[in-house]
Amino acid sequence: MSSSFGKNLVVTVFGESHSAAIGVVIDGFPAGFVPDLAALQAFLDRRAPGRAAHATARREADAPEFLSGLCDGRTCGTPIAAIIRNGDTRSGDYAELRDKPRPGHADYPMAVRTGGANDIRGGGHSSGRLTAPLCIAGGLCLQVLAARGIFVRARICAIAGTLVGTDVDEAGLDEPARAAIAAARAAGDSVGGVIECVAEGLPAGMGAPMFGGMENRLSEALFGIPAVKGVEFGNGFAAAALRGSANNDAWIIEDGRVLAKTNRHGGLLGGMTTGMPLVLRVAIKPTPSIALEQDTVSLSAMEPAKLAVRGRHDPCIVPRAVPVVEAVVATVLLDALLDASATFADGDIHVRPFATRRGASCRTGPVGV
Amino acid sequence: MSSSFGKNLVVTVFGESHSAAIGVVIDGFPAGFVPDLAALQAFLDRRAPGRAAHATARREADAPEFLSGLCDGRTCGTPIAAIIRNGDTRSGDYAELRDKPRPGHADYPMAVRTGGANDIRGGGHSSGRLTAPLCIAGGLCLQVLAARGIFVRARICAIAGTLVGTDVDEAGLDEPARAAIAAARAAGDSVGGVIECVAEGLPAGMGAPMFGGMENRLSEALFGIPAVKGVEFGNGFAAAALRGSANNDAWIIEDGRVLAKTNRHGGLLGGMTTGMPLVLRVAIKPTPSIALEQDTVSLSAMEPAKLAVRGRHDPCIVPRAVPVVEAVVATVLLDALLDASATFADGDIHVRPFATRRGASCRTGPVGV
Amino acid sequence: MSSSFGKNLVVTVFGESHSAAIGVVIDGFPAGFVPDLAALQAFLDRRAPGRAAHATARREADAPEFLSGLCDGRTCGTPIAAIIRNGDTRSGDYAELRDKPRPGHADYPMAVRTGGANDIRGGGHSSGRLTAPLCIAGGLCLQVLAARGIFVRARICAIAGTLVGTDVDEAGLDEPARAAIAAARAAGDSVGGVIECVAEGLPAGMGAPMFGGMENRLSEALFGIPAVKGVEFGNGFAAAALRGSANNDAWIIEDGRVLAKTNRHGGLLGGMTTGMPLVLRVAIKPTPSIALEQDTVSLSAMEPAKLAVRGRHDPCIVPRAVPVVEAVVATVLLDALLDASATFADGDIHVRPFATRRGASCRTGPVGV
Amino acid sequence: MSSSFGKNLVVTVFGESHSAAIGVVIDGFPAGFVPDLAALQAFLDRRAPGRAAHATARREADAPEFLSGLCDGRTCGTPIAAIIRNGDTRSGDYAELRDKPRPGHADYPMAVRTGGANDIRGGGHSSGRLTAPLCIAGGLCLQVLAARGIFVRARICAIAGTLVGTDVDEAGLDEPARAAIAAARAAGDSVGGVIECVAEGLPAGMGAPMFGGMENRLSEALFGIPAVKGVEFGNGFAAAALRGSANNDAWIIEDGRVLAKTNRHGGLLGGMTTGMPLVLRVAIKPTPSIALEQDTVSLSAMEPAKLAVRGRHDPCIVPRAVPVVEAVVATVLLDALLDASATFADGDIHVRPFATRRGASCRTGPVGV
Repeated sequence: MSSSFGKNLVVTVFGESHSAAIGVVIDGFPAGFVPDLAALQAFLDRRAPGRAAHATARREADAPEFLSGLCDGRTCGTPIAAIIRNGDTRSGDYAELRDKPRPGHADYPMAVRTGGANDIRGGGHSSGRLTAPLCIAGGLCLQVLAARGIFVRARICAIAGTLVGTDVDEAGLDEPARAAIAAARAAGDSVGGVIECVAEGLPAGMGAPMFGGMENRLSEALFGIPAVKGVEFGNGFAAAALRGSANNDAWIIEDGRVLAKTNRHGGLLGGMTTGMPLVLRVAIKPTPSIALEQDTVSLSAMEPAKLAVRGRHDPCIVPRAVPVVEAVVATVLLDALLDASATFADGDIHVRPFATRRGASCRTGPVGV
Repeated sequence: MSSSFGKNLVVTVFGESHSAAIGVVIDGFPAGFVPDLAALQAFLDRRAPGRAAHATARREADAPEFLSGLCDGRTCGTPIAAIIRNGDTRSGDYAELRDKPRPGHADYPMAVRTGGANDIRGGGHSSGRLTAPLCIAGGLCLQVLAARGIFVRARICAIAGTLVGTDVDEAGLDEPARAAIAAARAAGDSVGGVIECVAEGLPAGMGAPMFGGMENRLSEALFGIPAVKGVEFGNGFAAAALRGSANNDAWIIEDGRVLAKTNRHGGLLGGMTTGMPLVLRVAIKPTPSIALEQDTVSLSAMEPAKLAVRGRHDPCIVPRAVPVVEAVVATVLLDALLDASATFADGDIHVRPFATRRGASCRTGPVGV
Repeated sequence: MSSSFGKNLVVTVFGESHSAAIGVVIDGFPAGFVPDLAALQAFLDRRAPGRAAHATARREADAPEFLSGLCDGRTCGTPIAAIIRNGDTRSGDYAELRDKPRPGHADYPMAVRTGGANDIRGGGHSSGRLTAPLCIAGGLCLQVLAARGIFVRARICAIAGTLVGTDVDEAGLDEPARAAIAAARAAGDSVGGVIECVAEGLPAGMGAPMFGGMENRLSEALFGIPAVKGVEFGNGFAAAALRGSANNDAWIIEDGRVLAKTNRHGGLLGGMTTGMPLVLRVAIKPTPSIALEQDTVSLSAMEPAKLAVRGRHDPCIVPRAVPVVEAVVATVLLDALLDASATFADGDIHVRPFATRRGASCRTGPVGV
Repeated sequence: MSSSFGKNLVVTVFGESHSAAIGVVIDGFPAGFVPDLAALQAFLDRRAPGRAAHATARREADAPEFLSGLCDGRTCGTPIAAIIRNGDTRSGDYAELRDKPRPGHADYPMAVRTGGANDIRGGGHSSGRLTAPLCIAGGLCLQVLAARGIFVRARICAIAGTLVGTDVDEAGLDEPARAAIAAARAAGDSVGGVIECVAEGLPAGMGAPMFGGMENRLSEALFGIPAVKGVEFGNGFAAAALRGSANNDAWIIEDGRVLAKTNRHGGLLGGMTTGMPLVLRVAIKPTPSIALEQDTVSLSAMEPAKLAVRGRHDPCIVPRAVPVVEAVVATVLLDALLDASATFADGDIHVRPFATRRGASCRTGPVGV
């Protein structure tokens, strides 16, 4: 399945940038939860376009309509379906693109894959717009996790290679980052960045060895966010340059609990949570849609062509991707929290869901200290 | 399922470092293939311990016994099962570790997960030894891919933060890297590194948008290799520092085929292959088992403890991980090659497996040019 | 995942009987198909309520709105989402049922499962209404299959234990069956029946041995239709009373093709198609909602209670289930047709999707001859 | 995946009738369980050939060797792998069968599927011998279930159309059944039968609506047993002939628990357990391998041929299939018991595995009363 992920909590997204609607089906969500729909809307607004100078001018309300799975404002234990109507589309902008694939976009492989039947308008199913339904699912998961004391928070680490010094939220970016975005916009160009996500409050032992591990499940989902080109955990690629003595996290006892003195592994060892904060980073490439003229080809004529991507595009999608990373991480974490580890003792099965274990993490300081 | 991966070609590994045997079941492998078992053994030997100065002294023949799926030397279209007996084990070395979890290892979360029932000997199921069955599966896949003109080759990019200048294979490492390993060994310490893997000859359009993409499937599998802490594609994290104009790959026509002038995206756009070489890198952390005394805890006494990991351990597992990365990548690629994209035209379904399309890649130069 | 099925073609249904809408997401449907939406509506009308004397009086247009996956009237290779708004609901009818579970319904186990948070109105997600989205998916699959020469057709075999003598379609039922339904209705009671489904034109070799077989996949999906209590293939339960010599199907050559002289196995051997017509039967229990007073309990008082199910209910859902069986079978068949069997010969992989092989079936006579 | 089933507990079987070994990998089995290996062997002996007059003369010890997943006699929470060596094989017996497919066997579709590369010896992967690894997995599951008060027991209902009057176990069959088998053997023919399986002690609410239901999961697995042609639950096909008032199970209160007065639904409503005994029946076709000469074809000459199947074959496999049905049912039940239903109340997630709920069933009387 290309458009679903998850094991206990299965999220399926659908829609194209210019289809009647985009949407999500969430199967396996806990029954009996009363979502705070105003808080969900506020979360969706963090991702929505048209909010800031660095974002696209396209404006969508991104107001979800819940079609199923809620009864009297409460989840009823069956698939939650929600849609967002696509309103402000200008399909005419994209006619040229069927013949001239955009560099850095999925247009060409998607045309190969579908025999040319793909919906080219606005990038179709590959559009960043599909992150809105991911945020509906993730926004609900974030609420459940927060109620249980698990907090997932992403922030921008770097824009255009410039480290972002303070723990900014979506509302703000420091001056060097703003300047880098503005310069790129002025040049008809774009910039990328790195987002870090931290989840605190997780119990130890979640995940599994080998292929069902947290790293496997998180990366599988995170690479579903358009423009993500790398995922790392804890020290990540930097670990490759360290000695073992500088990368290992010593175990300590604190308040009667086993903890790690440092958190260089980002709360994960061998696929499983350690009880320390989970720390991961994703690399977001610069927006491929740029106003600058680029070399491409005409698929019909099979000859070189020039293309200047028109339409409304973010010179930097990194700020809008911050809540998307939170959403995807939260969805995977709730899915894993609904896992159970089965043990047998005293003559009986003990299936202990991770959601019954309180998190043990205590340290939230910077990674690698 | 924690110990399986794949969709059409499902690989399941089993075994512990000191169990009677380790092994693999490969479901969905093409029928009628005559594996070159001598070449497979040579491939397994690249991963096997005890080959070089930088590797552990433990010696295992790593000679697989095929139990099923082969008939008259030919694959018969049913699950291939192969095992490797565990011979040279010294279980006594590990008794202390049940009480004192090793820093940087999965001992502690695994004990939490299993209620203390886990097999601690040699790291149990989390041992690097489990990469041997992965290499059996991957070694077979590499042979099938090579017969079809698809070549998967990994190399060491960096050891201990030192770039490895030449395209070394497993037999050789240049002097700075050797020196870094030797110095770590002398200090009772360890080092990590970065491995790059390139696959040439893939057709365009493999994979899928969103969650079934090549990046998703590859990273899900690659994080199953012990010690991997990061995965990136093409320019990867470096893309985050570039402008769009410097990260996009222009499309060109060459010999009547659509190609990219550069390959900054590592042959992947939006989850799908472009026909250019697939390029990915994985970060391997330094071996956590080090001779230096480390801080840990006694789980029984719940008090601080000291631990100097005894036994035979590689000061650097990166060279041995090179064929493992090839194996995992080859397995995922063959799985994806067995996918089909279904289209409808001229009144009929056309299911076109990617294996019927010849690869279009031509450029094999360095990434990011 | 409880609300999805399929491997290459994944169908996810959502909705409750009285939610804002019910719907379906179809992932993996062939790109480039132009569905005949009028024919689809006609198919949906065969299932829709309010058509005949034996059906419920509830009337719904059952007109799907396609939200995604279609572009210019053509499938674009991404998930197809369609919804049907729920209009004519009388939620007030069901208030009593939260406390008094209906005999023969899923009310009680669903309340246990969800901690009482389930949507009781109209049976919620367990309602027969959820077969409408299944018919949207199946109706599209039927069109693709028909274009390729594969025809799936279900018929009523028996109503209330009375064999239905002629090959009736949805428009007609013979007199004994009509009389049985009318008598049940008059008595405030209900009746069930048996539906047979035949699929012609399938190639041989589809499916797989063991757990991925056609029987496994078909039964897994068919038991998702509410009220199905049994599934059998070919001679089915009757085979258990026969000798091998009377149950085996001899192989013959006809027009240069391998065929079976009889079709007692219903076109399936060991999980795989034989090229003969696929024949299966499902048992549909009598509608559990009956006007007769029944014994139940009050869950709040934990004491005996009486219940006469009010509201509009079919005395016999069998006629309406006929297109549902066709829909589910067609969906599973198209999914399996998109499978490929991979073989290796002459130095290369040959991935041969079953959709590239023409069906070999020729005999359509009665089963068991 | 064709050779695996299960969600939390994934069972993968491998092997051919005449390969070096057959085996099973069990992923997700509870950690810390100490299997009674003598009891397991006794269970496997119920299935093993060569025990009784009605069974094949082929003798295999069917003694499993555990390769992994056990440490100090206790399951360690990682995949359990076990193999049985194939010893007493006479591969020469089967040479003719590659050209002449056996009526009623999977030889022909398997040859189509694999391009003729399939292992024809003894039926290869489609052999009934593959039920031995299923019994290893199921035998372990039966032990866990029994420790928790869940008992799974199958019995023969009918042989050759003759009802078997008493609740026989594998050791005994009443005279009419024995006579039917003996008569078939004498005639070079075979007979089939019906097996009923009852599971007591299950909690209510296990399973799920739609496609993840108990019926779906059980039937998907049960059709993996060779020769099964039908599966029904509770009244099954007989329900189709009843009125709703005669098929519904009234709810009652007994000892403070909600129970059903009758058990016509076999403990299942809408995919979920009711807390009453789970009751299902499978139809086993007569052994297709018979000594009588049959019509078949020569695939090489594409002309009619005659075949008298030589070798050692059971005239009736039904008695040996009884423990196999128990094994498969037990595996699915333990898998479902490890499911959890997630609810949210009082500001927190409550993930309640079904294994934490004691079963409520009380009535074990005949079905349909």
